[in-house]
Amino acid sequence: MPVTPSANIGVVGLAVMGSNLARNLASREGNTVAVFNRSPERTRTLVDEHPEAGFVASESYDDFVASLQKPRTAIIMVQAGRGTDAVISELASRFEPGDIIVDGGNANFHDTIRREGEISPTGIHFVGTGISGGEEGALNGPSIMPGGSAESYETLGPILASIAAVAEGEPCVTHVGTDGAGHFVKMVHNGIEYADMQLIAEAYDLIRQGTGKSPAEIAEIFAEWNTGELESYLIEITAEVLRQVDASTGLPLVDVILDEAGAKGTGAWTVQNALDLGVPVSGIAEAVFARSLSSKRAQREASATLPGPDGEFAVADADAFIEDVRQALYASKIIAYSQGFDEIIAGAEQFGWDVKKGDIAKIWRAGCIIRARFLNRIADAYAEDPELVALVVAPYFRDAVTGAQAAWRRVVVAAAQSGIPTPAFSSSLAYYDGLRAPRLPAALVQGQRDFFGAHTYKRVDKEGVFHTLWSGDRSEIETTPSSH
Amino acid sequence: MPVTPSANIGVVGLAVMGSNLARNLASREGNTVAVFNRSPERTRTLVDEHPEAGFVASESYDDFVASLQKPRTAIIMVQAGRGTDAVISELASRFEPGDIIVDGGNANFHDTIRREGEISPTGIHFVGTGISGGEEGALNGPSIMPGGSAESYETLGPILASIAAVAEGEPCVTHVGTDGAGHFVKMVHNGIEYADMQLIAEAYDLIRQGTGKSPAEIAEIFAEWNTGELESYLIEITAEVLRQVDASTGLPLVDVILDEAGAKGTGAWTVQNALDLGVPVSGIAEAVFARSLSSKRAQREASATLPGPDGEFAVADADAFIEDVRQALYASKIIAYSQGFDEIIAGAEQFGWDVKKGDIAKIWRAGCIIRARFLNRIADAYAEDPELVALVVAPYFRDAVTGAQAAWRRVVVAAAQSGIPTPAFSSSLAYYDGLRAPRLPAALVQGQRDFFGAHTYKRVDKEGVFHTLWSGDRSEIETTPSSH
Repeated sequence: MPVTPSANIGVVGLAVMGSNLARNLASREGNTVAVFNRSPERTRTLVDEHPEAGFVASESYDDFVASLQKPRTAIIMVQAGRGTDAVISELASRFEPGDIIVDGGNANFHDTIRREGEISPTGIHFVGTGISGGEEGALNGPSIMPGGSAESYETLGPILASIAAVAEGEPCVTHVGTDGAGHFVKMVHNGIEYADMQLIAEAYDLIRQGTGKSPAEIAEIFAEWNTGELESYLIEITAEVLRQVDASTGLPLVDVILDEAGAKGTGAWTVQNALDLGVPVSGIAEAVFARSLSSKRAQREASATLPGPDGEFAVADADAFIEDVRQALYASKIIAYSQGFDEIIAGAEQFGWDVKKGDIAKIWRAGCIIRARFLNRIADAYAEDPELVALVVAPYFRDAVTGAQAAWRRVVVAAAQSGIPTPAFSSSLAYYDGLRAPRLPAALVQGQRDFFGAHTYKRVDKEGVFHTLWSGDRSEIETTPSSH
Repeated sequence: MPVTPSANIGVVGLAVMGSNLARNLASREGNTVAVFNRSPERTRTLVDEHPEAGFVASESYDDFVASLQKPRTAIIMVQAGRGTDAVISELASRFEPGDIIVDGGNANFHDTIRREGEISPTGIHFVGTGISGGEEGALNGPSIMPGGSAESYETLGPILASIAAVAEGEPCVTHVGTDGAGHFVKMVHNGIEYADMQLIAEAYDLIRQGTGKSPAEIAEIFAEWNTGELESYLIEITAEVLRQVDASTGLPLVDVILDEAGAKGTGAWTVQNALDLGVPVSGIAEAVFARSLSSKRAQREASATLPGPDGEFAVADADAFIEDVRQALYASKIIAYSQGFDEIIAGAEQFGWDVKKGDIAKIWRAGCIIRARFLNRIADAYAEDPELVALVVAPYFRDAVTGAQAAWRRVVVAAAQSGIPTPAFSSSLAYYDGLRAPRLPAALVQGQRDFFGAHTYKRVDKEGVFHTLWSGDRSEIETTPSSH
C-alpha cells in the first residue's frame, strides 16, 4: 500500500529526547508527526504508549520520507557523531530540493558547517539546531537555536515556535544565523551553564563551611535568593537538590553523592573555541577544570594531606557573609555571561553570522537550563546598544557590579584565607580587575617576548613596531611585526 | 658534475632559526652540513657570510639529497603548516628506506602524528622535533625534544646531542617518545612558559603598585631572586627588561611598551589539548587568557571607569610584602609545572608514548626559555618515584608549598582587596585548595546534573550508579551510567 504524505514534520531517532520532542510536536495544533527509528521496536513502543499523538510511524526510510508533506521537514535526534552522518545521508538521498533536514542533536558546530556545505549544493536545506532543556524541555517546551538558511526558517520557524518554551508571550526560538550558528550558540549556552553551576557550587561551599549551616538550611537560602535578581532555574533546582534527604542513610543527599562531577564535552568545546577566537572565557574554563579536577581521585587522595591555613573557618556574622556571597555570585555570574556573549560576538564575526545578541538572551529566558530573570536585562542592554562592547559596561550591569564589588572582594579574600577553593569566583574577579586596569603588566610580558624571541612591541607614544637589540647595544630599532 | 654525498646532516629552510641551527651543526666536530632553501639567494648569503661553516650548498632538491650520506638525515626548518608538507613531500620522493626526515618547526603534534603515519610505511623515518631556545638557542645550543621511532634516534641522537645545550654535563636532548611526542612535549613547554611569564608579570605588578618601587628597583629584586630557588632564565631577563631605559623618553622601557601581549598559539594549543585530555591546566589557561584580554583595547577602554576598591594600595612593610610575593610566585610556579607534567602524563597515556618525566625535566634545564634551577628538583622527584601522581605531593615540593602557602594566601588576599588582577596567582591557589579539599562541591554539581539531565551519580557509601526520580516521587533508583 503506498504511503500518503500526511505529516508536516518528522522525527528520526526516538530515544528519550527524540520521543519527547515528537510528543511535544504532536501535541500542538496543526502538526502531524512522522516518526522513525532504526530499531522498529522503539517506534512501536512509542506509538503504542501514545495513541493520543496520532503518530505516522514508518519502519523504513522510504516509507518515512513518503509520509512527509513537501517541503519535507525532518528533525534528526540521534547521538552526535557518525550516527548523524548516516541518517543525514539516508534522508539526503531521498529528499528533494527545498526539503529540510534538521539536526537537533548536540553536534559540534564545525561538523554542522561541514554538513551544511556538503548538502546545500543539492538544494536541500540543512539546519543544525541547538535544543536546550533536557528531556523535560523537549517534552514541554525547549529553547531552540536553529542555524541554517533564512529560507528554511520560513517553513521551520512556525513548527519550532509551536513547541518552544514561551517567555513573556514570546516563543523561545529565533533564527540564530546561517550554517553552524545554532550549534555554536548552543555550545556557548552550555559553557555559561558550566560557569553558572560552578559559581553556585562555590557559593554553597562557602556558606556551608563558613557558617556551618546544613544543606537543608542552605536550601532555604537559595530558595530565598530565587525570589530576587538571582532568580533562575539553576538556583531553583539547587534548593531542591540541597533539600533532598537520602532515604537509606537519612543524610542530606548532597553529602552522599560522590564529589566527582561529570561532563559531556560542550563546556570544553566552548573554551577550546574561545581560545581559537582569542576570547578570554576564564570563568567558563575554571568551571570546566573544576569538574575535571574533581574526578582526579588518585591525585586528590595523595594531596589530602597538603597543608591549608591554620585554624577553623567561621565567619563572625553569618547573615552578612551570606549576603556577601549572594552579591559575589551575582557579580561573577555577570562576568560569565559577559564572557559568553563575547564569544558569541567573536564567533559571529569569524563565521559571518548576523547574530542578534538580544534575541539570544530572549530565547534563553525559558526552556533552557540557564533560564533566568536577568536575561531580560541582557536583552535590554543589547536593545539599547547593539554594538555594546562588553556586557559588564552596560549601565544596568555596571551598577550591579558597582554595588557588588566590595562584597565580591570580601568573599574572594575569605576563600583565600580559609582555604576554600573558589576558582570561578576568584577568576571572575581577576578578570574584572584586568578589564578595568589602566595598565596591565602585559607590557612586561611583551618585553620578555621581545628579549628572547624578537617578537617586537608597540609603544604607547607613537605608531610603529619596535625591537630592542637586546643581544647588541640595546638600542631600539623600528621594524616590521615578527612572523616567528 | 655529479654531487658527491659528503654531508652527514642537512638543513632545509634557512630563515633565522634554520640558518642558526645549520651554523650550530657546522661548528661541531664531525658534522658536514648540507643546506638548501627554496630561494637560492638566501643559501648564497648564508654560505658567503659563513665560510667557516664549510656548508655544502644546493640549489635543487635533487642536488641537496645527493649531497647527503646515507642514512640521509635532513632537518626541515620552515614555517609550520603547508610549507612543511610541501618540503616533506619533496624529500620523501627522493629519500630511501632508513633515511630520516626531521621536522624541527613548531608543528601541531596532531599534524606530526598524521605525517609520521603517512611516511612510515615507506620505510623512511619521520621525526617531529621540538626545538626550544629561540634564535640564540638554535645557534648556541637549544633544548631538543625529538619524537619519532627509537631506531631513527640511533642516527639522529648523536647529531642532536652535538648541538644541544648542556646542563651539568648532559646534552639537553632525549628521545621523548614515538611519532608526535616531541612536538607534544614542546607544546606543553610553551604552555608552562606562558604561565611562568604571567606569574612573573603579576609579581612585578603587585610590587610596583604595592610598594611604589620603580622598574629599576624592581629589576634589582628580580636579580636578587635569581640567586635563589627561583633562579631561571625568565627571572634573569625580567631584570634585564625592567632595567632598560627608553632612549627617546628617558622612561623605563616597560612603561613605554604598549601593554598588549601577543601570542603565537602554542599556549592555546596546550590548553585545548588539556581539555581534550581532561587535565586541569588552569594556571596556563589564565595566562593565555590574560594575554588575549590585554589585546581587547575597545573593551578595556570602555571598562576603564568600572569601579575598583576604595583607597590607595600601599603595603605597610614593603620588604615583607616582597618576600610574600616571592613565595607566592614560587608556589604558583610549582602548580604550573605540576599541571604541565600532568598534561604530559595524560598525553603519553592517550597516545602511547613512553615518556620519561625526569628526562623531560632534565632536557629543559638548559637551552630553552623555561630553563630553571628547580627543574633538577622535578627530575629528582620523578627519579625517586616514577609513578608520582602529582608533582606537588613530592616531598620537596610539598615542603616548598607548605612553607609558602601562608604568604601565597596573603598575596592573593592583597590582590583581591586592592583590585590588582592576579589571575594566575589566584587560580593556582584555588587549584591547590581544590586538590587538597577532602570534599568538593562537585557533589552539588553532580546533583544538579542528575536533576535536570538524569546524568546519574555515584555514592560515597556503595558501588553503583544512581538516579533520583526528581520529577517523580523522588526515590532513588540504581541505574546504568547516563549516555546522554
